[in-house]
This record gives sequence, C-alpha cells and structure tokens, in this order.
Amino acid sequence: MKTVLIGNGNLAWSLAQALHQAKEIELLLILGREEKKLEDFKQWAPISTDWNDLPEADLYFLAVSDRSIASLSQKASGDGLWVHCSGSTAMDQLASSVRRGVFYPLQTFTKGREVNFKAIPIGLEAEKETDYQVLEQLAHQISSKVFRMNSEQRQKMHLAAVWANNFSNHMIAVAEDIADKAEIPKEVLYPLIEETIAKAQTLGAHSAQTGPARRDDQQTLNRHLELLEDPTLKQLYTQLSQSIKKNYSSEE
Amino acid sequence: MKTVLIGNGNLAWSLAQALHQAKEIELLLILGREEKKLEDFKQWAPISTDWNDLPEADLYFLAVSDRSIASLSQKASGDGLWVHCSGSTAMDQLASSVRRGVFYPLQTFTKGREVNFKAIPIGLEAEKETDYQVLEQLAHQISSKVFRMNSEQRQKMHLAAVWANNFSNHMIAVAEDIADKAEIPKEVLYPLIEETIAKAQTLGAHSAQTGPARRDDQQTLNRHLELLEDPTLKQLYTQLSQSIKKNYSSEE
Repeated sequence: MKTVLIGNGNLAWSLAQALHQAKEIELLLILGREEKKLEDFKQWAPISTDWNDLPEADLYFLAVSDRSIASLSQKASGDGLWVHCSGSTAMDQLASSVRRGVFYPLQTFTKGREVNFKAIPIGLEAEKETDYQVLEQLAHQISSKVFRMNSEQRQKMHLAAVWANNFSNHMIAVAEDIADKAEIPKEVLYPLIEETIAKAQTLGAHSAQTGPARRDDQQTLNRHLELLEDPTLKQLYTQLSQSIKKNYSSEE
Repeated sequence: MKTVLIGNGNLAWSLAQALHQAKEIELLLILGREEKKLEDFKQWAPISTDWNDLPEADLYFLAVSDRSIASLSQKASGDGLWVHCSGSTAMDQLASSVRRGVFYPLQTFTKGREVNFKAIPIGLEAEKETDYQVLEQLAHQISSKVFRMNSEQRQKMHLAAVWANNFSNHMIAVAEDIADKAEIPKEVLYPLIEETIAKAQTLGAHSAQTGPARRDDQQTLNRHLELLEDPTLKQLYTQLSQSIKKNYSSEE
C-alpha cells in the first residue's frame, strides 16, 4: 500500500517511523513546511516542501496541527484516501472533493522519543465503508489495537485524553514543585506515581481513589490549604477535593 | 532489632510483610483493634487485640489512622522508640513520655496488594539524634531509599503526594467515565497514561506538559467545555486549564 505523510511535527515523526517499519506499507514521500525539521525524516523516506511533488498514493496522512487541516485539505487531489490524525477535528473538515477518513492514534508523541506503535489504540473513521476497510487493513499493519470511532466518539476520547494526559501531568508538575520547594528530590514521588497508575489499571480509578477528600478528612484538607501559598493552586485544591467528594458522597 | 506493629489497616498490612521479610528485624507482635482483620496478619507474627500483651521492644510502629495517633500514643510506655507513620501528623503529636520519631513511607498501600518496599522512599525523623541513627539503621533493612525529613518537609511531601496520587487518580477516573459514556473501553486510555508518567519522569512534568491549555488553543477548550455536561467537571476543566496556562504564560 502506497502512502504519503504530510507534516513534520511530533506525531509525523513517530508515524513516519511506524510507516517505514511496516512491511506491507510503502512510504513514498514526507511533505512538510519546515526544511530544517524535515531533515530528521530523511531516514525513512524522500522529503519535500513542495506540494507539486505529491505522488499518486493509496493513502495520504495529514499529520498537521488541527487549525491547518481544513485549509491544507483544500490542496488535496487525486484518487487516494485522505485522512487526518486529529482527535478533536470532525471528518467533514476535510475537503469534500476527495475520499476522506480519520486515523487517530490515542497517544502523546514527542519527536526523538520512540514509542511502540503496536500498542497504541487507533480510532478509525471513513466516509465510505469500502474506504474504512482499506484504512483498517493499513492500521492493522501498524497497531494491534484498532477501533471504529465516529467523530463524536473521537472528540470525547480526545477530551478523555486531556484528563488522562494533560491534567494528570499537571498534577505531577504541581507535586514536583511542592517537593522542590520542600528541598526534597522530586524522584521521591516516582514510586508513588507508578503505583497510582498500576492501581488505577488493576482496580479502575474509581475504586482506587484514596486520600483526605475521599474520606472527607476536613482537618487534613484545611492544613493542606494552609500549606499552599499560590491562590490558583489553593482554589484548584478545593475544587479537586469537591469533585472527588461529589463522586463518592452518594455511595456512603 | 525487636519491633512491634500497632495497626491492622492497609499500611500495617504491607509493613508487617516487610518487617517479617527483613533479616535483622524481629516482629514480636502485631496489635490491632479488629480481630477479624488481624487474622490476615497471623502469617507474619503473633497477633493480639490486648494492650497488656505489649512486649518490650526496640521500636514500636503506630501504623494507625492520623486521628488515632495522639490518643493511642498516650498508652505508650517502656524504653523503646515510638514512631508514627503519617505524612500529615507532626512528631510532637506523640506522647512526650516516650522516645519518639516518625517513619513515613511515601506510597499508597492496599491490603492484599504486594509492593516492593525496597523501592519505597521513607522519610525519617526522630527527636534525638541517637534515636535517628537507630531508626535509620532499621529503615535501611526495609528500603534502599531513606531520607531525613523534618515535620514541615514531611507535611509538604504529603501534600505533594495528594497531587501525585489522589488528584492524578481522579483525573484518570474522569477520563474513564468519559470513555465509558462514549462507549469506548477505558483500557484504550492505558498506553496514554503509561506514556504520560514515563515522559514526566524522563523530562520532568513541567517540560512534558502538552495539550490545548498549554498551547492556549481556545477553540478546543471551548469545544471540550461544551462536551462536558457535569457543572462540577466544567468548572474543574476551566480551573485546571487556567492553572496550566498560568504556569507557562510567563515563558512565552
């Protein structure tokens, strides 16, 4: 299956590697805006910054920022299937002049950081069922966890991913800052963080919840609020605790 | 070194196991309130519900709930060193009639769930330096990560642990609920969650931060707020995003 990758960011970097490694996929070209960034992609396929170089292919990946999807897809042409890779963008943002679909890998990507694409869940959508079959066949070459997701489900999964990744990372960032100010190395928190997600996966996060808010320990909650100096964090601590309490108040 | 463990909860369960396994530690007795729960502790040492059974020992662990520490320590006697295991309780909550200290393992414990105590950071404090030496020697038998922490540092680390464990777990719980409502199995989120903490540990959570709030993508933030129906979660989403934005606004 002949493919073209458009984009030179974090996702494009990981996807290029996965496409390159898949035996039955040929990566014809990587097209990007930034010549310098594209240099890092040479190892996997020919590179170009010129849309006129776009070859005929079975599948075109638009691995670009959400805001560029609609405008770039206006340049789409040919008989190939065009897919974007965004969680929060509806399929119909792609130009209607081409066959269209979505290939959404539910993961956080960083250029230079290898990920095991086989383990990454991929949410697929296509306008036509025959295109879905093509897309599914390709996705199975890259990942063993392929799901059908319509645009609404995908947007909800993107929202879920913001909680699971962005917000939980922020919680860790706040924890690291507190450790830092207490002159304790932040690494002290790592075994706890690892056990947190191990427990969440074994028991489900709902059952794994513990802590002063969960047991409604007002004394500890008050003392913690005193320890927090930053007003944004104070407010956030209160709100997070209330949200936890609310989840469990009806049970007891 | 002769030890006694007081408590029959989650921490006591894990600690009893660790004390039992440590070669140079003898666990003379496990004292608890609840006969039925104590049954599970028999495998590691004699059990009792009667304070009169308390033997002479070098070290007594009060592995009980925060609110019970002060009152139970009033029953303390003898020449041994008494330590509590609480992150949020000052050392001077222990009765002043005995030698006192703190043994705080920074981890979340669940009865029945084995943890590798060797990898758990332990924060130590003692009123007298000679007692600190005793405590440190013992702690090294159980864990390879032993730290000196005064009461203020320990309370801050407990606060950090609430962010790293309780609050990040709540983020995962919310994500799981959203997946559930979208009729997508929550396991789809697990590779993302694992990569989140792997990245936080490699890069530090501050550098690892991504997402719509980090890049100030108001369009996605608004769409996510529309998708969230629960007013508590809407408010929390806004607050979390503001807190992330605030962390990075000065940098760009």
